[in-house]
Amino acid sequence: MKKQAVLDILKAVESGSLSADDALTRLKLEPIDDMGFAKVDRHRELRQGASEVIYGEGKTPEHMIKIAKSLISDGQSPVLITRLSPENADIIKKELALTYDERSHVGIVGEIPPADGKGYIVVATGGTTDIPVAEEAALTAEAMGNKVERLYDVGVSGIHRLLAHADIIMNARCIVAVAGMEGALPSVIGGLADCPVIAVPTSVGYGAAFGGVAALLSMLNSCASGLSVVNIDNGFGAGYLASMINHI
Amino acid sequence: MKKQAVLDILKAVESGSLSADDALTRLKLEPIDDMGFAKVDRHRELRQGASEVIYGEGKTPEHMIKIAKSLISDGQSPVLITRLSPENADIIKKELALTYDERSHVGIVGEIPPADGKGYIVVATGGTTDIPVAEEAALTAEAMGNKVERLYDVGVSGIHRLLAHADIIMNARCIVAVAGMEGALPSVIGGLADCPVIAVPTSVGYGAAFGGVAALLSMLNSCASGLSVVNIDNGFGAGYLASMINHI
Amino acid sequence: MKKQAVLDILKAVESGSLSADDALTRLKLEPIDDMGFAKVDRHRELRQGASEVIYGEGKTPEHMIKIAKSLISDGQSPVLITRLSPENADIIKKELALTYDERSHVGIVGEIPPADGKGYIVVATGGTTDIPVAEEAALTAEAMGNKVERLYDVGVSGIHRLLAHADIIMNARCIVAVAGMEGALPSVIGGLADCPVIAVPTSVGYGAAFGGVAALLSMLNSCASGLSVVNIDNGFGAGYLASMINHI
Amino acid sequence: MKKQAVLDILKAVESGSLSADDALTRLKLEPIDDMGFAKVDRHRELRQGASEVIYGEGKTPEHMIKIAKSLISDGQSPVLITRLSPENADIIKKELALTYDERSHVGIVGEIPPADGKGYIVVATGGTTDIPVAEEAALTAEAMGNKVERLYDVGVSGIHRLLAHADIIMNARCIVAVAGMEGALPSVIGGLADCPVIAVPTSVGYGAAFGGVAALLSMLNSCASGLSVVNIDNGFGAGYLASMINHI
Amino acid sequence: MKKQAVLDILKAVESGSLSADDALTRLKLEPIDDMGFAKVDRHRELRQGASEVIYGEGKTPEHMIKIAKSLISDGQSPVLITRLSPENADIIKKELALTYDERSHVGIVGEIPPADGKGYIVVATGGTTDIPVAEEAALTAEAMGNKVERLYDVGVSGIHRLLAHADIIMNARCIVAVAGMEGALPSVIGGLADCPVIAVPTSVGYGAAFGGVAALLSMLNSCASGLSVVNIDNGFGAGYLASMINHI
Amino acid sequence: MKKQAVLDILKAVESGSLSADDALTRLKLEPIDDMGFAKVDRHRELRQGASEVIYGEGKTPEHMIKIAKSLISDGQSPVLITRLSPENADIIKKELALTYDERSHVGIVGEIPPADGKGYIVVATGGTTDIPVAEEAALTAEAMGNKVERLYDVGVSGIHRLLAHADIIMNARCIVAVAGMEGALPSVIGGLADCPVIAVPTSVGYGAAFGGVAALLSMLNSCASGLSVVNIDNGFGAGYLASMINHI
Amino acid sequence: MKKQAVLDILKAVESGSLSADDALTRLKLEPIDDMGFAKVDRHRELRQGASEVIYGEGKTPEHMIKIAKSLISDGQSPVLITRLSPENADIIKKELALTYDERSHVGIVGEIPPADGKGYIVVATGGTTDIPVAEEAALTAEAMGNKVERLYDVGVSGIHRLLAHADIIMNARCIVAVAGMEGALPSVIGGLADCPVIAVPTSVGYGAAFGGVAALLSMLNSCASGLSVVNIDNGFGAGYLASMINHI
Amino acid sequence: MKKQAVLDILKAVESGSLSADDALTRLKLEPIDDMGFAKVDRHRELRQGASEVIYGEGKTPEHMIKIAKSLISDGQSPVLITRLSPENADIIKKELALTYDERSHVGIVGEIPPADGKGYIVVATGGTTDIPVAEEAALTAEAMGNKVERLYDVGVSGIHRLLAHADIIMNARCIVAVAGMEGALPSVIGGLADCPVIAVPTSVGYGAAFGGVAALLSMLNSCASGLSVVNIDNGFGAGYLASMINHI
Repeated sequence: MKKQAVLDILKAVESGSLSADDALTRLKLEPIDDMGFAKVDRHRELRQGASEVIYGEGKTPEHMIKIAKSLISDGQSPVLITRLSPENADIIKKELALTYDERSHVGIVGEIPPADGKGYIVVATGGTTDIPVAEEAALTAEAMGNKVERLYDVGVSGIHRLLAHADIIMNARCIVAVAGMEGALPSVIGGLADCPVIAVPTSVGYGAAFGGVAALLSMLNSCASGLSVVNIDNGFGAGYLASMINHI
Repeated sequence: MKKQAVLDILKAVESGSLSADDALTRLKLEPIDDMGFAKVDRHRELRQGASEVIYGEGKTPEHMIKIAKSLISDGQSPVLITRLSPENADIIKKELALTYDERSHVGIVGEIPPADGKGYIVVATGGTTDIPVAEEAALTAEAMGNKVERLYDVGVSGIHRLLAHADIIMNARCIVAVAGMEGALPSVIGGLADCPVIAVPTSVGYGAAFGGVAALLSMLNSCASGLSVVNIDNGFGAGYLASMINHI
Repeated sequence: MKKQAVLDILKAVESGSLSADDALTRLKLEPIDDMGFAKVDRHRELRQGASEVIYGEGKTPEHMIKIAKSLISDGQSPVLITRLSPENADIIKKELALTYDERSHVGIVGEIPPADGKGYIVVATGGTTDIPVAEEAALTAEAMGNKVERLYDVGVSGIHRLLAHADIIMNARCIVAVAGMEGALPSVIGGLADCPVIAVPTSVGYGAAFGGVAALLSMLNSCASGLSVVNIDNGFGAGYLASMINHI
Repeated sequence: MKKQAVLDILKAVESGSLSADDALTRLKLEPIDDMGFAKVDRHRELRQGASEVIYGEGKTPEHMIKIAKSLISDGQSPVLITRLSPENADIIKKELALTYDERSHVGIVGEIPPADGKGYIVVATGGTTDIPVAEEAALTAEAMGNKVERLYDVGVSGIHRLLAHADIIMNARCIVAVAGMEGALPSVIGGLADCPVIAVPTSVGYGAAFGGVAALLSMLNSCASGLSVVNIDNGFGAGYLASMINHI
Repeated sequence: MKKQAVLDILKAVESGSLSADDALTRLKLEPIDDMGFAKVDRHRELRQGASEVIYGEGKTPEHMIKIAKSLISDGQSPVLITRLSPENADIIKKELALTYDERSHVGIVGEIPPADGKGYIVVATGGTTDIPVAEEAALTAEAMGNKVERLYDVGVSGIHRLLAHADIIMNARCIVAVAGMEGALPSVIGGLADCPVIAVPTSVGYGAAFGGVAALLSMLNSCASGLSVVNIDNGFGAGYLASMINHI
Repeated sequence: MKKQAVLDILKAVESGSLSADDALTRLKLEPIDDMGFAKVDRHRELRQGASEVIYGEGKTPEHMIKIAKSLISDGQSPVLITRLSPENADIIKKELALTYDERSHVGIVGEIPPADGKGYIVVATGGTTDIPVAEEAALTAEAMGNKVERLYDVGVSGIHRLLAHADIIMNARCIVAVAGMEGALPSVIGGLADCPVIAVPTSVGYGAAFGGVAALLSMLNSCASGLSVVNIDNGFGAGYLASMINHI
Repeated sequence: MKKQAVLDILKAVESGSLSADDALTRLKLEPIDDMGFAKVDRHRELRQGASEVIYGEGKTPEHMIKIAKSLISDGQSPVLITRLSPENADIIKKELALTYDERSHVGIVGEIPPADGKGYIVVATGGTTDIPVAEEAALTAEAMGNKVERLYDVGVSGIHRLLAHADIIMNARCIVAVAGMEGALPSVIGGLADCPVIAVPTSVGYGAAFGGVAALLSMLNSCASGLSVVNIDNGFGAGYLASMINHI
Repeated sequence: MKKQAVLDILKAVESGSLSADDALTRLKLEPIDDMGFAKVDRHRELRQGASEVIYGEGKTPEHMIKIAKSLISDGQSPVLITRLSPENADIIKKELALTYDERSHVGIVGEIPPADGKGYIVVATGGTTDIPVAEEAALTAEAMGNKVERLYDVGVSGIHRLLAHADIIMNARCIVAVAGMEGALPSVIGGLADCPVIAVPTSVGYGAAFGGVAALLSMLNSCASGLSVVNIDNGFGAGYLASMINHI
């Protein structure tokens, strides 16, 4: 549509109904929007094919239903909704085919697509309390067409639990390592794996965990190579990036 | 020139030598650069008329001489150099008519222009040790065509010193209030003045001053209206903004 | 009245009913209050003409009604109430002609005055969740007699959305840029605009957003010129300062 | 009593009923308790005459009633209870002659004693929201036998309000200056006054006030002489210290 | 003089040479300065009688000599110079009768006055490395006419060292407790003493001492009554306040 | 069992039913799990004999009952559950012989074993509000077979209370020192005792206590030897370590 | 070799010269090392083929020469040395064919390999002072076989500079975005690009930049998808990860 | 001696040469010192037998020689000096038989005693740059009579290096785990070991390592049981505590 608007101006010049100078003026008035948007738009379309995401926090269920329906009518499937409260999920379910995961507060409208990434993504956690964030990552990746291997509760203070799964780690295409408290899991995984490791600190812990800061700092200072970090509790961001890497 | 490039494309469409579709493609390849740049460029020219500034930290004197000469040949006068070390000032002086202020590490190549702002700017400090930052603000403002009234060492723990100059404060068009340690000066000035007050925390102090953080927080929490804050020791930013307000 | 009190003392000296020495004593007993207050008072009157503001947090509705009535009887219109809870708004509505904005928790008693500023103020936000703070700024500015252009949800991670409105930005007299999370919006706007930019960090975000600290630091460190910062979520302060600049 | 216990041991040695070696053993078993306690005890008695205080947070009303009765039976009057919730105050009122201040959450069992300090104590606040903490200080001081002058809402962004009361400030024996947000009040008062100023930061404010940290840092960095600081919201500590200074 | 200026205006009104209205105008132009200054000025004279202090950091020796000579010619003795570098001390010594303490960087021009306080001040330290700050406090107090008892290296991890001096502590009129690292000394002293305790955190320590922050926080949270805190390493502030309390 | 699996592979090689190369492959597929686990497993068995602990936070009562039953059927007694809410305790009580401590939120299924450590453990607190954390430590230690001496409310601002119990401190095998606010207790105890002191900061306090950070920093900077620190409010960790030291 | 050791044990069992039980014992003594190491070892070999890196900080030139020679004799080329001081570079140059980059303190022994990644990597910076960190990333990536496009000084406060290169950004396979101060560059790039963006905060800036913390927080809170963050100034880590992604 | 002093007083009472009342007075004058000191003194003697330590930072070599000679004449051997600069070591060597370790800045006067602990202590580090702190711990432990096993450079990002030494870890009596950067080593070791683990964060790292804070937080939040933490870079404290545990 926007692309069309630019094309219309150019066609008008081509047809002689608009002078080049006037076209310049019109383009200057909103040139970047038109062309920029068009550019980003197609790029958005590409991404939307994978998954346009609704960030559910602070949105009303009515608002989310409207956006979701619009996306669906544009042909997108599935529609992912993150940070969706159980109450809002119940309301949305009445109107749309929503699958809702209580632990991660992730809702998915429509079917999970078949996995079309080049390999599989590992999502690992240090403890059981990190699972909600991990599931946000895992479900995001699955909704974007990835095979996900879950390795939960393999924290470093019982290193054998992690090593027991060394093979799965060593053959992954990308790993999302989720940990709260001391946040050491990504470092150990980064030392075992050959692929990019996305570290997700969680706000799990108490006292000097400072709501995930201890884990965050630990991860930023990891001496393992190939490791990078996203925001505290940002499972979605990690899952999205992992999918991007798995689809390159 | 850049505008010309866009116009050329449009002319080519107008003349029929380029189809609308091909024009769209070419515009899409670098539309934002061309038009955006042109737009911002002219806008830059306007600002350069006032004063293009060289941030001296980390630049070699040779580099600064080259930039300054280029600006001068573009017709700019004066050229302001901030955060200029005395050693580099000595080297630049050999090639250019540089006036150098040792306290604030500000250098000015060329003449200070006559003040053409709508009023005058007050630059006030809490103590004598805040003067280097204050002079960076004052000289920046003067180099950009402003009359500056200096009120130094009028800190709040001797409130009579400040009140003695209440008239100067009440008639200013914009005030730059510079303070380290407890950083309370801008709050008191903000309560006296009717005009915008730009608060500049300085890194003056020791112990729990934390390099200006105490003053910064104090200023951000001021209950005086019309007050805003710039970075610690950012005299230049405050002087620049004050000049902008004084020239509106 | 206070001015009158000082004048009364002086008149009494003039008429001979009070000696100069006794007058000095009386003035010394409360000289600053009397004269200082008088001075500030007139200055307050000027400001009150624009808008005397009630900070609603922690005040009872009865208290606010009383203050508002007193201001109205002094001829002020409108009366702005910030940080007003919906519950208290309901109570006030029973007694006064209050217009209440649920998003920003701003209440306005009386009519918005016609815009008499010299230009218009842009209020921009990075995301939709920043809108409550932005509306506090926008409504404050409008209540103080300013035309406000709203540019909401033009965050930097989709830069085309912002650039589409470059013209509105470039012609503003003052811009309030509101952003949480990474807080980058004011920097980009500051690079496009020629006028003062007031940056407002919001507490929007999670994890390492630290309740607005990430955005605050980002804004304080902006390398854009003409930019200053107010406290986290301080929409009122930004709107007030913007109005001040727009009325200079 | 305790002193008696030590004396008893020594008397037993004197009378020959206990050998010096055995006495050493017994003294070694609990010598510090006995003598130390005795020493501190008498010193405690002195203080209890002024006021033994019950910190109400986390104590059950039954527990507080028991302690208060025990103190009263020891002859103490009044008994001060700080951080007492309204609910617990209601329960205590059924058993004891409690006067309760809702703003400061201070309860006083018994009569306020006549003021016997050497001068008067000023308790000043920057804003109205600081009053609960100020009242904790003021009531503590009054319960300990001090005359208190209250100067509320004399914050530095309207300096004339403070200066109007300069005389009261200049003649005080000790000043408690309570302020949140930018916390500048104690600095200004410290510049006016000749007596010790006890600065109390409050958790009043939002955003970069960080629950009182901004005010705390501001106060610690004050360049006013004769100023010291207590913990955030610690009105009791300030009132207690002020009373101590006023009774020296 | 200033008072005279106000009186002159009033006399002129009295004599009829100035109308009351014109007097109001003139007083309004600089009323606060005139009267405020006069008031504070006399108050300053009182304090100068005790000791006007030169803060030596960042001042040239020539500057300090000039100030000191001016103070001496005003009749002040001794003149205290804090934070004076050994190099500058050497230069000053050539012109003035300076006694210099290398540990605390305190210089005193002239004779220490006889102690005229009402009791004695204890200055105590946790370790030997806290002594420079303690000496700044002790010498300040001595220069202002106080008897000082030094209790150095009585840190709490060897509590018997402190208890051995319990009598000196219990009979003091004011105590300055100086400690770095864990900063626990003031708490223990506060539990033993009946008088005001001024806690001075020092920047002594490493790692999580954070340049005195650990000690500062420890002191602010002390549950001992009668305790207040000054800035990290602020020996002068503590000594000044202790003298004030000892002279009340 | 796991050890058995490895042995089975080796036996198969020994018997000739598996070639060395094939054995290598199978071992490589999951060697670490098998052998690592076996190793750690036996080591776990040893620890389980003492006490396998359930961290109750975030677990459903059904889940906890299941784990506890499994541990009991493995022969473990007692089973310790930490951070158990009263509500969940009530549910568990219906199925298991749970003793629940309301203050510390510790539940114990089964009988406390007889104390078999080499000495006794002292658990001391600075105030009464630290008792919940102290009890978590004490009950953990008791459930793991230790004699515990409780010294509660012996904070350093009334040092005689602590010194009265010097003998108990001096003869302990390990001491857990629990304190909030200024956190000075472990330092003083560390100076009196010869044995390891485990310092536990608590989140008790307000204002600059920062949820236990002040106490934590104080403890980390203690100059007492033989002292180490665990996380804020981590009574369990301290009790566990104390038991470990008492059983060496 | 290590694998061989395990095989030897198994062969000995196979041949009957070692019993299964004894084999278990021997494997238990160092099983993880042998097999784990072997596993990781081969995996290390794979990585070494790309580039074994020497972290130069704190290593003597002699030590580095030794390691480099060993790596070269193992067939590795080139050998990358990061954080290499100019002095040490001079010493190493005498023994090895070292190319040294003064800006980034990166040394490369041997030839840069031909680029064999699947696309190209963009390394972008906000300012010129970020270039040393950017070059560490770029040279690391080049030494590991990647084509690198440098986009320096394209900071967001002059957005047209960045947009002028939108095509290069949109076609990259991975982008390293390096920025100090407000750190907004990665967010804007993340909104334009389809590929993973690795954000590198730099310690460039002053005042509230806090040595890179402001930029770090800004990047962690970016709302752009596909973005992750490495440690402050960690150009090497970003270059390494970018190469990993470009070689997947 | 001190005990003698108390006994002398008591004997004098016993013999009738001192009345009980007079004895009380004398005991009250310095009771705590005498008895407390005596008590602590003997306890000190016990410790001195093991090792009286000189903290070398901030002490002159002359001072240290004097203390060391006094300790030697008291029969102590060896004398440990920590944080001793190479320059001061050279001076001390001229007078005393000092062995000096350049890496850890530890000096030992006299012979290392034979190991008489009950087991051995492991000192492990994450990287080679942590070795100075580790050696401070190891040499302290050796000087106090312990066998020390060093496991250096076994960081968690190459977990096989650590696991290769699992046996040494599993049989230790106490482990000192030293790590900077992400500080994850103690967690992994704590999961493998049965004995107390003393975690020592080091200031090794850059950027978000914050001088050891990241490692410190990581260690405090470890979910491994039996782990406690000392101050950043406090190798001495860890070695001392490890020796204490090994000698229980």
